[in-house]
Amino acid sequence: MRAFVMRQIGQVGFMDKPVPRPGPLDAVVKTTAALICTSDSHTVRGGIGPRENLTLGHEGVGVVHEVGEEVKGFRPGDRVLSGAITPDWGDLASQNGHPSQSGGPLGGFKFANSKDGVFAEYFHVNEADANLAKIPDDVPDEMAVYCADMLSTGFMGAENGHIPIGGTVAVLAQGPVGLMATAGARLRGAGLVIGVESVPGRQRLAREYGADEIVDFTEEDVVERVLDLTQGQGVDTAIEALGADATFQSAIRITKPGGTVSNTGYYGEGEFVRIPRVEWGVGMADKTITTGLCPGGRLRMERLLRILQGRRLDPTPMTTHTFRFEEMERAFEISDKKIEDMVKVLITFP
Amino acid sequence: MRAFVMRQIGQVGFMDKPVPRPGPLDAVVKTTAALICTSDSHTVRGGIGPRENLTLGHEGVGVVHEVGEEVKGFRPGDRVLSGAITPDWGDLASQNGHPSQSGGPLGGFKFANSKDGVFAEYFHVNEADANLAKIPDDVPDEMAVYCADMLSTGFMGAENGHIPIGGTVAVLAQGPVGLMATAGARLRGAGLVIGVESVPGRQRLAREYGADEIVDFTEEDVVERVLDLTQGQGVDTAIEALGADATFQSAIRITKPGGTVSNTGYYGEGEFVRIPRVEWGVGMADKTITTGLCPGGRLRMERLLRILQGRRLDPTPMTTHTFRFEEMERAFEISDKKIEDMVKVLITFP
Amino acid sequence: MRAFVMRQIGQVGFMDKPVPRPGPLDAVVKTTAALICTSDSHTVRGGIGPRENLTLGHEGVGVVHEVGEEVKGFRPGDRVLSGAITPDWGDLASQNGHPSQSGGPLGGFKFANSKDGVFAEYFHVNEADANLAKIPDDVPDEMAVYCADMLSTGFMGAENGHIPIGGTVAVLAQGPVGLMATAGARLRGAGLVIGVESVPGRQRLAREYGADEIVDFTEEDVVERVLDLTQGQGVDTAIEALGADATFQSAIRITKPGGTVSNTGYYGEGEFVRIPRVEWGVGMADKTITTGLCPGGRLRMERLLRILQGRRLDPTPMTTHTFRFEEMERAFEISDKKIEDMVKVLITFP
Amino acid sequence: MRAFVMRQIGQVGFMDKPVPRPGPLDAVVKTTAALICTSDSHTVRGGIGPRENLTLGHEGVGVVHEVGEEVKGFRPGDRVLSGAITPDWGDLASQNGHPSQSGGPLGGFKFANSKDGVFAEYFHVNEADANLAKIPDDVPDEMAVYCADMLSTGFMGAENGHIPIGGTVAVLAQGPVGLMATAGARLRGAGLVIGVESVPGRQRLAREYGADEIVDFTEEDVVERVLDLTQGQGVDTAIEALGADATFQSAIRITKPGGTVSNTGYYGEGEFVRIPRVEWGVGMADKTITTGLCPGGRLRMERLLRILQGRRLDPTPMTTHTFRFEEMERAFEISDKKIEDMVKVLITFP
Repeated sequence: MRAFVMRQIGQVGFMDKPVPRPGPLDAVVKTTAALICTSDSHTVRGGIGPRENLTLGHEGVGVVHEVGEEVKGFRPGDRVLSGAITPDWGDLASQNGHPSQSGGPLGGFKFANSKDGVFAEYFHVNEADANLAKIPDDVPDEMAVYCADMLSTGFMGAENGHIPIGGTVAVLAQGPVGLMATAGARLRGAGLVIGVESVPGRQRLAREYGADEIVDFTEEDVVERVLDLTQGQGVDTAIEALGADATFQSAIRITKPGGTVSNTGYYGEGEFVRIPRVEWGVGMADKTITTGLCPGGRLRMERLLRILQGRRLDPTPMTTHTFRFEEMERAFEISDKKIEDMVKVLITFP
Repeated sequence: MRAFVMRQIGQVGFMDKPVPRPGPLDAVVKTTAALICTSDSHTVRGGIGPRENLTLGHEGVGVVHEVGEEVKGFRPGDRVLSGAITPDWGDLASQNGHPSQSGGPLGGFKFANSKDGVFAEYFHVNEADANLAKIPDDVPDEMAVYCADMLSTGFMGAENGHIPIGGTVAVLAQGPVGLMATAGARLRGAGLVIGVESVPGRQRLAREYGADEIVDFTEEDVVERVLDLTQGQGVDTAIEALGADATFQSAIRITKPGGTVSNTGYYGEGEFVRIPRVEWGVGMADKTITTGLCPGGRLRMERLLRILQGRRLDPTPMTTHTFRFEEMERAFEISDKKIEDMVKVLITFP
Repeated sequence: MRAFVMRQIGQVGFMDKPVPRPGPLDAVVKTTAALICTSDSHTVRGGIGPRENLTLGHEGVGVVHEVGEEVKGFRPGDRVLSGAITPDWGDLASQNGHPSQSGGPLGGFKFANSKDGVFAEYFHVNEADANLAKIPDDVPDEMAVYCADMLSTGFMGAENGHIPIGGTVAVLAQGPVGLMATAGARLRGAGLVIGVESVPGRQRLAREYGADEIVDFTEEDVVERVLDLTQGQGVDTAIEALGADATFQSAIRITKPGGTVSNTGYYGEGEFVRIPRVEWGVGMADKTITTGLCPGGRLRMERLLRILQGRRLDPTPMTTHTFRFEEMERAFEISDKKIEDMVKVLITFP
Repeated sequence: MRAFVMRQIGQVGFMDKPVPRPGPLDAVVKTTAALICTSDSHTVRGGIGPRENLTLGHEGVGVVHEVGEEVKGFRPGDRVLSGAITPDWGDLASQNGHPSQSGGPLGGFKFANSKDGVFAEYFHVNEADANLAKIPDDVPDEMAVYCADMLSTGFMGAENGHIPIGGTVAVLAQGPVGLMATAGARLRGAGLVIGVESVPGRQRLAREYGADEIVDFTEEDVVERVLDLTQGQGVDTAIEALGADATFQSAIRITKPGGTVSNTGYYGEGEFVRIPRVEWGVGMADKTITTGLCPGGRLRMERLLRILQGRRLDPTPMTTHTFRFEEMERAFEISDKKIEDMVKVLITFP
């Protein structure tokens, strides 16, 4: 089969690989749609260390091709979604309520990390009964595929932020995860959602997904503006959706005492992420900082699909570009360079 | 001033009373709008014991008339909302996170219980800085008044139910509290909301407030139907919004192991409310039962007003009847008898 | 191998069975010690329906005899403990945080329910890597075996009860689960622990495990006495450790508004368990009722073993009787009839 | 009356002040015992900015001297304890569950900050009914006074750390707050408590208060040693009880994915407190950071007093020095310079 791989740090391309075979608990899925993620670019640049001929991609849907003998809930032909994160459910971290950390820190992140990813004609899913979900008939593939990472990570930002009904929320950066954090804040009942973003197309999407106010950090001071919008109190919840030291600092500054900074961003640079001491209340202002990695698993995916099925949200306006799998090189370049007002690039498979 | 009172059990009418005066921390509000609540009828029938010439009503808004010398945040002329529950914020129960229970069980419930209520030209509010909220200019009185009890209690049903994003919820009974529980379930991100109701007008409102499915208990078996709608699993959260033994039992039965039964209903009859033993998992199915009394307080009211200001929800379609205060007797009769497809009766003041 | 079985409802005895074989993820353990539980008697009396030649027992420790090919963490010869509950960790209920409910209500309860139990020379453990824990060298078998159910269930009563540091707790009934709930309440930092019990030997153990006060329900009114001990306020947490309607009612009555009734008892009789309406605050006093089934799994067992290893607690004074496996019939009779001041009967294996 | 004040930054001494008078909700207490805190030294050095003739001290007990006309629960002659933090209970932050932040960040901290403290013959307590607690007869003043800050702050470190029963905890620094965090970790049921400390006298106290292991950072690498003691996994909870950037970094490093870093320390220096990026799991390892300021209030104080009354803990071994109020200058010098193996300095009043 054809697979789009990271040959080594800095280099991508197609190669042929054998179709994977499932172990007793696993499944192999024939890919029908996938999304390119910023993380794929991080990976290619060496963000998780050297890899050789590793198939990229972790956001994919498809049709079950083959299942292991112990798989009970899925059969060949089922339309399925896999979470980007596919935990080992018996692991101690999973038993502790943190399946994304199973097998070690961030260990649930297997696709395009510890095994081949979904940018291939077929992909392999561990513990299929626990990590796949059937896609309802009325949810198309190109919509369902957003559950794998974008909805799951973005909503996690809102959930970890402990938003009270009618509470105030700021979402710092409106890339696709930030947009879904914005939507997630609305889904949790926020009374005021402030989106921080400078790119016009993303500002527009942020409004569509529920931002009541947009703050353009190139035009005004984010901290000042958010404090102003909250009568000087700061927000109940600040969601960091970029992964930058400066943004994280703003998140601390705009959060009220007793509030929560909920992190979704991946920090790729520097030795430290820095907390501004005084605005953190010298360590005594009841400000909580939470972090997380995209929740996976069948239950999570079923719940996210229900959100789509119930028409609570349509993620497909984030699809700015669509390519066929054979055009993967051009597709990856657009995503990697963030050109042409790219938000999210969809890949379709024959 | 004119006040509409419960003269004794079973008897209501107008009487003259002196305009109340505020203690040092209190305020007196000139009433502009109020809503009649089913609880007012419970009270008149003796639900909280005998009372003599007690002014009825606990859902009211108005304009500050006079404040005590220690009040800092409000001045005469401010348009304000008071929660139906006005806690003593320094009480041990408040310090324990349960302000509605301050001063004893249900002790935060003062209006038309331990002191005169809001069906009068003026009403008295204890701890004004903590129990009043300013009404934003763009929220009219007849909308704001729904925050006092209906939004606060209904949303509490959803909040106490620990609804996961994309989770399944059933709301048993679609009276005004049930309707706001339905809206609250949507505000918390439920993926499937099932409203149980037989009255057509309330079914229609339930759909408007977000019910995906309606179950009419006069036509089908509620337990069977809800299990069917959830692939036999039961719901994550069942919200009891009636206050009847049979409904409570259904709530237990339709809740999945690990799920929550969230009670908002007032149980007015019988020695016991009964849990069906086997469906409760013989006490071992991780099913949690939560209860509560309408949250009050300035913070709560500000958050609810923000929901209205952000146009998340419009409660005014629940207003089926509007009367002037002088027509209170007719208004009360309609509410009391639940005639003319009454959902909620609004009272306006000169 | 020899196994002690329930031949049919009401009849127990020895029989020969083949030594079980592990599936790919499983283990077979050679039994070294086991405890008899009241639930074994419930089962024999038909509490979970008819069974034929089912090996009894769910509290056992031993030495790994054989493991499946996929098992990574255990080898033959390892001294191990299995939880009484052995969840399917990939199940939706487990992903939802309720592994004891995996595979359906109470579905994690497999030993002596859906498969053979531990009263045999060998027993089978599903998902061995997730459900076994190694016993530290300094914890003897006859101590470790208490983790399987007694510590796990008793402590769960305390954990689900949300006890604040310095809070007040009542534990209703001081059988072995109640005694471990008492110990658990102390482990969570309760400031006042009231044990309700009439049997002198159990009263003495209750004091040893941390009860500050003992209330003998045969001599005084429990509700009155507990209210008296808490200055009329009621307790923060009432733990029901018997499984009786009357006891459950007392638990509701002695719990303060905003407090929690935490259930550990198995209710074996009647159509309903009844909530006293008025003392429940007519459904509005912020009183929460939680339930649960003994948590299992490797992480839980490791944490409980750490409690023993750290000498926080010694459960072995509960062992009032010790028998060799060949004396099982006499042992079972004593446990079943609760004679000779029995608290817990230990079985040793050759 | 005599008061021990901070004249200006860097300068302390006695002066005469009028005995304070209570407002309607307040009380004035005649001091009987007080403790000197490291924070008093921070304050004198300018940690909270310039102050002039401000009475120092926030840990005090005494006898009610006079109460305001609205005070219901206390009378002159009552032996009472006040929390170091005396919140405004009606404030929005209090309603939000964060009373220590009432009136702004850290605003509940009034003694020796926004008003005169307790190092005087009399001190003033706001909202007496909500901020005082009666001291039981069997708890002496010199024991009760530890509740005001040391127990409340130290235990908060354990409570915010979400310690599971049997979990692993490290407490970084064993000053008096760290020692009480160690005791608090035991009170929450930790299975392994590791105390980090180099001073022999504090190491000894740490063992007495429940540390199972002591790590001396002058002799071994803290991170390496804690990972070693937890089989490479890291702790469930790390409590920072010093307030230093380097210690905070260690806390992040030794915490397992899914674990909690609970901060009690006051950070007095530098623009930033720094999170080590990689060990924080690049912002994705489900590691939560919590902070807080000493909880105050009557309920909290009553619960802490119950811990003492129940003989769960004796804080008085931390009293290394006792002085009469007239010897305050020498007492303050010892505490300030941390000489003579000082842990805590008690001041007695005539």
